[in-house]
Amino acid sequence: MTQPFAEPGARRTTRHPLDFARQLEERLVFTPGPTEVSPRVREAMALPVANSDLDPDFAELYRATCAGLQELLHTRSDVLILAGEGLLGLEAAIASLVEPGDRVLALANGLYGHGFADFARDYGAEVTVFEAPDRRPLDPDALRRFLRDQKPFKLATLVHCETPTGLTNPVDQILPVLHEHGILTVMDSVSAIAAEPLEADAWHADVVLGGSQKALSAPPGLAFLSVSPAAWEAMARRRTPIRGVYLNLRLWKDLWLDKGEFPYTPSTSDVYALYAAVAAALEEGEAARLARHQRLARAIRAAGEAAGLELYPAPQAAARSVTAWLIPDALRPREQAIRRFMWEEHGVLMAGSWGDAAGRIWRAGHMGENARPEKGERFVRALAATLHHFGWNLPGDPVEAYRAALAGEGPALTGEGGGRSS
Amino acid sequence: MTQPFAEPGARRTTRHPLDFARQLEERLVFTPGPTEVSPRVREAMALPVANSDLDPDFAELYRATCAGLQELLHTRSDVLILAGEGLLGLEAAIASLVEPGDRVLALANGLYGHGFADFARDYGAEVTVFEAPDRRPLDPDALRRFLRDQKPFKLATLVHCETPTGLTNPVDQILPVLHEHGILTVMDSVSAIAAEPLEADAWHADVVLGGSQKALSAPPGLAFLSVSPAAWEAMARRRTPIRGVYLNLRLWKDLWLDKGEFPYTPSTSDVYALYAAVAAALEEGEAARLARHQRLARAIRAAGEAAGLELYPAPQAAARSVTAWLIPDALRPREQAIRRFMWEEHGVLMAGSWGDAAGRIWRAGHMGENARPEKGERFVRALAATLHHFGWNLPGDPVEAYRAALAGEGPALTGEGGGRSS
Repeated sequence: MTQPFAEPGARRTTRHPLDFARQLEERLVFTPGPTEVSPRVREAMALPVANSDLDPDFAELYRATCAGLQELLHTRSDVLILAGEGLLGLEAAIASLVEPGDRVLALANGLYGHGFADFARDYGAEVTVFEAPDRRPLDPDALRRFLRDQKPFKLATLVHCETPTGLTNPVDQILPVLHEHGILTVMDSVSAIAAEPLEADAWHADVVLGGSQKALSAPPGLAFLSVSPAAWEAMARRRTPIRGVYLNLRLWKDLWLDKGEFPYTPSTSDVYALYAAVAAALEEGEAARLARHQRLARAIRAAGEAAGLELYPAPQAAARSVTAWLIPDALRPREQAIRRFMWEEHGVLMAGSWGDAAGRIWRAGHMGENARPEKGERFVRALAATLHHFGWNLPGDPVEAYRAALAGEGPALTGEGGGRSS
Repeated sequence: MTQPFAEPGARRTTRHPLDFARQLEERLVFTPGPTEVSPRVREAMALPVANSDLDPDFAELYRATCAGLQELLHTRSDVLILAGEGLLGLEAAIASLVEPGDRVLALANGLYGHGFADFARDYGAEVTVFEAPDRRPLDPDALRRFLRDQKPFKLATLVHCETPTGLTNPVDQILPVLHEHGILTVMDSVSAIAAEPLEADAWHADVVLGGSQKALSAPPGLAFLSVSPAAWEAMARRRTPIRGVYLNLRLWKDLWLDKGEFPYTPSTSDVYALYAAVAAALEEGEAARLARHQRLARAIRAAGEAAGLELYPAPQAAARSVTAWLIPDALRPREQAIRRFMWEEHGVLMAGSWGDAAGRIWRAGHMGENARPEKGERFVRALAATLHHFGWNLPGDPVEAYRAALAGEGPALTGEGGGRSS
């Protein structure tokens, strides 16, 4: 999504175009998806490739993967895995549910929230935006007051975790408000699934959207989503047909769910990898997995504070999966050079951001396989050394702060928690 | 695309959902895409996963892969690799080029040809179908006569190889006719690329569409396409904007080609694999690769003839990548059982077909990694033994016919050639 920070090859000494990938073994991709991918998941990618249209064992694997995702999302809704990036799921949900003239409420306090509004407009909706500043979480009480004066909405879009700004919304409190008003809900949980608490059915999320390359730490290439009975019904009640095939969820119902035929050839190897990633997440268990993310997020934030970096989102809304900092004014002109130095000298990749946040925000992705103490420490060491190299005066010792926070001994942080009370 | 022929697990003795994939090492997936995937390509899938948005070395790999595809297609047009199945490319081309009211000519003598017409109608085109029966190739002279009486068309769609019926159209002669009439051409070459001759620029193909899992023998998951300057211009001249993001090729021009930013996170590992597959195809060389496909196709057809199976397409239009036979009437009621037996007892997967052809056609996929003499022989042995087991009276010895044809010693075949004079 963001621009690569340099032309390639400046420091490469080898020539084969895939050598760089082999050399990643020694590096750390500490970005908010794609993340590091475990050897177990990568090995699954290398298995012999089944004919995913014809092989009944592949169909069984696909179903097992969907069942695992249901468990992760806490939903009894149908789950589908689509061949494409996470964005495919977002657009497919809108393309399949929204008709010209539909009233859509877009809850927006970040890039993806506003992007949802754009999608809905593209598909002909009459869109009302309920917004908050991008450093603040959406407020369920304000939403409740707002809805009092509104005509009915068919559908609301919301974003669980705004990856570009590292902000998690209190969707456990927002979704029930929307449900009380009879509004169908479409939630982008791409960078939240497996890192943040998520109770799709209990909170009344009709469509929950995910991607393979975020906290599940599979390679990019798959979108997945849950579709509630109410959402299927809304598609069945459309006045106009859904256009085309690739964004058409209805075909998945008619062909796959009802007849066992895929609408197009599924991505065999990517599904192998997603299965392995989901299995690993379930084996770890939800409590341990969420606590691991919480612990890492807290320690990374503590390190950032010791490094003199200002957390971008309001502390109570800081995500468990990604930390976003405002780049200090003094460093902004060199922000690309700083990240390049960190990558080339320390082998650690930190992300910038994009849209309005490009050049203003740095991000550490501590989701999935990245949420490991040793990886976090490597990131913190590289960050501290890099900032020091560029003449930044660090107010504390980031490594010490990181370790103390991991051990639960650190000073009280300005930011705490995964942002929600659930 | 077609229905799996059995519920899974009847014969499985193991339980882990990925075990079936490991066991494929001993089996032969002789279907027209997905195909067998070489160890070299599978190893590329298992490499560490780069951040495909940020890592400049990934961008370089992506460009190198596109350059390789340009070489394979013989085009100087831009090439893009999209995250999704081959169908994504077909729909993206139509969604990006077709506006309501546009006059579109759909050349159709098979499922994909007619599917293109449906796509164009979905996107608002006024569609004229120029058709031929699905066992006959499209006739360039008939097309020329047909076009004399027609008002101008903005765009024509055509299918290079109709995979469901194993038929290759003489696109080397058809494309120039369309070009003479000033018609933009969108060609589905998904199952032709790397198996059939293809000269995109010399023949005037504006958009050529491909998929990873056909004759390049990479895993399914990527679509790719070439876009000529005239096609980009047609998008720039649209009266209405292209809707959304995922099917919007214009964004690839504005973001990727012009600024080096991907519209969404590319499928890192799938691109690794496609790079390796394209590199292997180029290393083999075009003459050797096309001859290998030609030789295998001829031998498989000879074996089919000796087995008493009737070739579905007219012999001069039989594809180099896939052979389709009409299932004998006597065997049709048991066609699923026959394929299941072949898979379970002989470990060889043969495809049925779909749409109108489901239950009427069997298909052998001898494209890419499947176009190897020993794999072809294993298929032929399994086919002969299976047909014999089901009481079919084979008129000849398929293995002998296969070997003789491979050695260039066989009797004259009723079917010959890749269907085209080029």
